[in-house]
Amino acid sequence: MRSDLPQIYTVLSPALLKYYDISDSIVVIIDVLRATSTIAAALYNGAKEIIPVDSVEECIRIGNESGCIMAGERDGQIAEGLQYGNTPFQYTPEFIKDKTLVLTTTNGTRLLHMALAAKAQSIITGSFCNISAVSDYLLAQNKNIILACSAWKNRVNFEDTLFAGAVINRIKDHFQYNCDSTGIAENLYQLANGNLFDFMKENNASHYHRLMGFGLEADIRYCLTMDNANVLSIYRDGRLIAG
Amino acid sequence: MRSDLPQIYTVLSPALLKYYDISDSIVVIIDVLRATSTIAAALYNGAKEIIPVDSVEECIRIGNESGCIMAGERDGQIAEGLQYGNTPFQYTPEFIKDKTLVLTTTNGTRLLHMALAAKAQSIITGSFCNISAVSDYLLAQNKNIILACSAWKNRVNFEDTLFAGAVINRIKDHFQYNCDSTGIAENLYQLANGNLFDFMKENNASHYHRLMGFGLEADIRYCLTMDNANVLSIYRDGRLIAG
Repeated sequence: MRSDLPQIYTVLSPALLKYYDISDSIVVIIDVLRATSTIAAALYNGAKEIIPVDSVEECIRIGNESGCIMAGERDGQIAEGLQYGNTPFQYTPEFIKDKTLVLTTTNGTRLLHMALAAKAQSIITGSFCNISAVSDYLLAQNKNIILACSAWKNRVNFEDTLFAGAVINRIKDHFQYNCDSTGIAENLYQLANGNLFDFMKENNASHYHRLMGFGLEADIRYCLTMDNANVLSIYRDGRLIAG
Repeated sequence: MRSDLPQIYTVLSPALLKYYDISDSIVVIIDVLRATSTIAAALYNGAKEIIPVDSVEECIRIGNESGCIMAGERDGQIAEGLQYGNTPFQYTPEFIKDKTLVLTTTNGTRLLHMALAAKAQSIITGSFCNISAVSDYLLAQNKNIILACSAWKNRVNFEDTLFAGAVINRIKDHFQYNCDSTGIAENLYQLANGNLFDFMKENNASHYHRLMGFGLEADIRYCLTMDNANVLSIYRDGRLIAG
């Protein structure tokens, strides 16, 4: 590895973000099941912008003030007071084109706000749905990268780690890393060998198990498909927009 | 998996321990390179007990009070004021038999004290050097398990994750788990396919890299060898003793 190349770090849980200096890095927020997949779908289908917020209350407040679409789930159900959930299938072009979506999620939004507070140089969101847009952007920028997994209540999960590994696998020749989490993620991705759904199933991944219990197999399959909503999602002034 | 079996959780960094309830669990403290390997070596070679302490100052204080062997490193060197380092080769039977060792390490000792504070039901230490003793104990106890990796300044590392995976691989038929870190660790261990040293080398594991830089290849090889100091190391009243 050449020592003049920019660095890649992988942060497997939001609770670990503080142990990395992210101020000179692009931070990729990863919440594969399902926040960053739904964000990609909405932007790909023409949403004007997405405002990520931490709480249902703030979601309702912003939604009522501006008349935008209010969405978010808690425990797998549309949260009380909101109109729509966190499934990518909701955000068709007919539904979302030119609209503003205010979205509350737990793990992903909190991580994004942590990255902002830690003064990330820039923030994008990533999922398998827009992996090529993410990888191409990272290659073009040629800056240090933090692949930041949203995990589940700070517990490391398979799908976000797999996505980090997939990105590393695509871009590693143009970066250097001295980060075991980065190596672990890439090994895991290679082990899945292109069969992400089956790998999650065989390993009884906790989120696979949880979402199957809600009858959401189609959501899982969508969120594990490469480039089905291939648009860059970049954070600017409180909003995620198509880059 | 049968739902009446005890649970296994894997905690990949000390910073994640607080997200798990450990009060009804056996906690296995893992610090493969090199604290828990050195502890296994010392107990296997007849040490009476090992007192793990956080700071060099406390190590010196206890050592001076009781006349025991004071050991510990900082940044790969014997810490100032101490007599011995953190290499398992130091603790031969001739040197350590019937003696008390007061040992200060950074990551492993801190994690052990965190597990104590969180009221772990019991605490043992584990490394490849005593993997059979650890696995046999866990099987015999038949209680919930937390495999707790010491990591490196809270950053997840290969070797502790690999050891967790090795233990899971041995005992999984007698436990259940709904913990992605457990699955990730076991997959990683299986991928290493018995060649732990080569796997660390090929992946340029950060600790491999660091210790090779100190000329400590023999230490790494020792610490990645199964059952070369196969004794149970259990924590009782402030001391680690052979179980």
